[in-house]
Amino acid sequence: MMAAGRNDLERFFDPKSVAIVGVSKGAFRFGGMSFLRKLQEAAFPGRLYPINPRAAELGGLRAYPDLSSLPEVPDLVIVCVAARMVPGVLEECARLGIRHIHVLTAGFRETATEEGRELEARIRSIAREKGLLVIGPNCMGPYSPSARLTSWGAIPGESGPLGIVSQSGAITQRLTEYALSLGIGTAKAVSFGNAAVLDECDFLELMAADPKIEVIAMYLESVQDGRRFFHLAKQVNRTKPIVIWKGGETEVGAATAASHTGAMSSEWRIWEALFRQTGTTPVHSMDEWADAILALARLPAPNGKGVFVMGGGGGNSVAHGDACIREGLDVPRPSPPTMESLRKSVPMAGSIAGNPLDMSRVFQDAAYLGEVLDLVYQDPAIDMVIIDRLIPRKIYHLPDLPDPTPETIRELKSKAMPKPTVFSVDSGGGDPDLAERGAALRAQLCAAGIPAYPATRRAARALARLHRYHAFRRARGA
Amino acid sequence: MMAAGRNDLERFFDPKSVAIVGVSKGAFRFGGMSFLRKLQEAAFPGRLYPINPRAAELGGLRAYPDLSSLPEVPDLVIVCVAARMVPGVLEECARLGIRHIHVLTAGFRETATEEGRELEARIRSIAREKGLLVIGPNCMGPYSPSARLTSWGAIPGESGPLGIVSQSGAITQRLTEYALSLGIGTAKAVSFGNAAVLDECDFLELMAADPKIEVIAMYLESVQDGRRFFHLAKQVNRTKPIVIWKGGETEVGAATAASHTGAMSSEWRIWEALFRQTGTTPVHSMDEWADAILALARLPAPNGKGVFVMGGGGGNSVAHGDACIREGLDVPRPSPPTMESLRKSVPMAGSIAGNPLDMSRVFQDAAYLGEVLDLVYQDPAIDMVIIDRLIPRKIYHLPDLPDPTPETIRELKSKAMPKPTVFSVDSGGGDPDLAERGAALRAQLCAAGIPAYPATRRAARALARLHRYHAFRRARGA
Repeated sequence: MMAAGRNDLERFFDPKSVAIVGVSKGAFRFGGMSFLRKLQEAAFPGRLYPINPRAAELGGLRAYPDLSSLPEVPDLVIVCVAARMVPGVLEECARLGIRHIHVLTAGFRETATEEGRELEARIRSIAREKGLLVIGPNCMGPYSPSARLTSWGAIPGESGPLGIVSQSGAITQRLTEYALSLGIGTAKAVSFGNAAVLDECDFLELMAADPKIEVIAMYLESVQDGRRFFHLAKQVNRTKPIVIWKGGETEVGAATAASHTGAMSSEWRIWEALFRQTGTTPVHSMDEWADAILALARLPAPNGKGVFVMGGGGGNSVAHGDACIREGLDVPRPSPPTMESLRKSVPMAGSIAGNPLDMSRVFQDAAYLGEVLDLVYQDPAIDMVIIDRLIPRKIYHLPDLPDPTPETIRELKSKAMPKPTVFSVDSGGGDPDLAERGAALRAQLCAAGIPAYPATRRAARALARLHRYHAFRRARGA
Repeated sequence: MMAAGRNDLERFFDPKSVAIVGVSKGAFRFGGMSFLRKLQEAAFPGRLYPINPRAAELGGLRAYPDLSSLPEVPDLVIVCVAARMVPGVLEECARLGIRHIHVLTAGFRETATEEGRELEARIRSIAREKGLLVIGPNCMGPYSPSARLTSWGAIPGESGPLGIVSQSGAITQRLTEYALSLGIGTAKAVSFGNAAVLDECDFLELMAADPKIEVIAMYLESVQDGRRFFHLAKQVNRTKPIVIWKGGETEVGAATAASHTGAMSSEWRIWEALFRQTGTTPVHSMDEWADAILALARLPAPNGKGVFVMGGGGGNSVAHGDACIREGLDVPRPSPPTMESLRKSVPMAGSIAGNPLDMSRVFQDAAYLGEVLDLVYQDPAIDMVIIDRLIPRKIYHLPDLPDPTPETIRELKSKAMPKPTVFSVDSGGGDPDLAERGAALRAQLCAAGIPAYPATRRAARALARLHRYHAFRRARGA
């Protein structure tokens, strides 16, 4: 877009006063009313101005008939009126000196109607002419837990190392929740919809400059300026990994994207070239996105792609080896001194000394796990570690034993984990009890800063991406 | 193996008396003692004979010094003594006319030692000479809920349409649990380890002949007789789908498999040819296995691969379309009469009429869902249906509404679902509350006979496999 400086955009994420144009009276419904209510629930500390010419009070606050009647010039205006009324509101903003505007309203280019396209063109030309900063239309706008600007009804967000730039509100919302459940807060997120004015590059620059943000997640259906995006992504990715979910990568997805944000999704092979040349990380689903972010936010750079896998069960060990290789990792034979030490502690029958290590004792005996980790952290053949942590259940014929997790976490923390070390916790079954216990165990490990995945395959894929990112960076001398 | 008839093998799964050779005294540990205890916990209705020459009583039962001292010839002997003592036990069995023997003991070919290989060769030659039917060694043996033979400490199994033939005990156990959580019981399972005597073909024939079994799951690290397996699998798969997880498909997996069951995993391309030519269904993980079984056990044959997807959220709809195409399905444009009817009920802004259908009203309004289903069930362009059911949360700004699931289930049941119809329930995040509610919702739908998957991608992959299976069968005129 136009020359919007980063400082210009910061105010979207820390407004002291917010006006919501178009808060309806009567029964609850999505729109201005839900935004007002959610900001109140989140105890937004700034001033809130609901606007409706036919109301005196809304949500316990004084209502105003229009922006001109407000006692101050608000830092942010959220526009929720019908599409055909949006240009008028923008003109009113321009007259009053309001520059920061988020347009929630849908019904523009994405409808593929002449009326919708024309309305969007008017938004763009008003913004250009008057120097307005507009997020949207057709989007959920900015999200900023540190400013308690969590108008999406999110889990009351904790700030953290993640920045999100997205063309989908629901997907952004879900990622903030998902990442937080893995112990990773979101410093800033923006859902920017049709990108009529401000676009992905504007927000990418903003996230790149924010010292709190360490990993940037993007959900894109389209890019407004491919050349600018290519160069910017390449440059930013050198210091902050960018994980990109490109929606509309197939023909059907692309057609749906056109109906969603009016986006023209370009061909997938162009995107593949972009991922290859910029070193940015492509993902294809919410799970892959969260998995990669977790690894990139928490783990040190691996020296190579040799992974050591430990867990229990012969069949499981076979499957772990297959999964790692399929994801592009190596599962190297440990060095002779490591093998010698392992053989001493692993019984001949019913377990397997090697890589993968089939030795269920690592689940219950934190000190033993620590001994094995000492071996593999010193072994030059090994670059990363996956510990497959089965959830103790009746099946294992075990007597009741104390929960080994707190001691396991202490043991791992005491090693400082110089090589990327993650857990996998098999809990994908439909069994609600197992799903809950598995999620709780994952959360416990993640909260301690140790990434935990719900399947070995997913752990392996995330580590493969971690390795790819750092190998690219090293090769470019970054 | 030798000519073991199906009737010969049935007794393994319905024994009236079981002797366990090698039940230790003292502290609880895995082996004969855990098998005895689990059979008692499961209220095994037959007679149980623990054997230990140095005990008078074990687990509240009279103990016997050896098989020869028993008051009857037991239907099944479970051998849990050290590897070097196993040949002697087999010879005692032969003398007493006992033919059905399961050898739990490990320490044979899989150790890659000369001693282990020789011991396994002796087991094989004794069995051949004396006509013994031996499962194992190095395995968990038979599992049969209808006979209360659930000595693995399983969830007290319910019988159902699944049969499992597997070289891994832990993986088999996990699948019985997993499938049951999806509403699918297991009629028979067998973990057969090193396959020294009875092998995958013997058990596949048994499962094929069991009228209760409708879908057969196999976990294989090796095949003893490739030619026999190829022809048998091709024939059985014509009437009962066989879903095969081949462990050791990569070089590392294969090396681990050798240490696990002494298997020589053959090259992956041979397996690919087998899957292609037999029409059997290959999977690569526990989740894929359970997902495919759920579809094959519950859904009718689709006419083609055109899927209709409905759910809420524009970004979600883009992702759903991408996921289905990536899994090899089509996402066709509905026929004109369907589109016309959809347009009438879908608002222009904020929703998308089409395929995918972005219309969150289907979550809450069962009657409306029913109307949409009537349209797509009559539409010749549509062969299958995925309903993406978001779990209501704060994010959706919804007021508290009654749980629509019971009415939704009634509505779907009333339609008799003539085309394969499944749900996806996004609950993959680490959030324990969401994981539990998602699993509970999946379980509720699955218990009603409606397959529900934890992600659209997984639903799409399972439907692609369902289509592939039936297309193969139709092409062969089966």
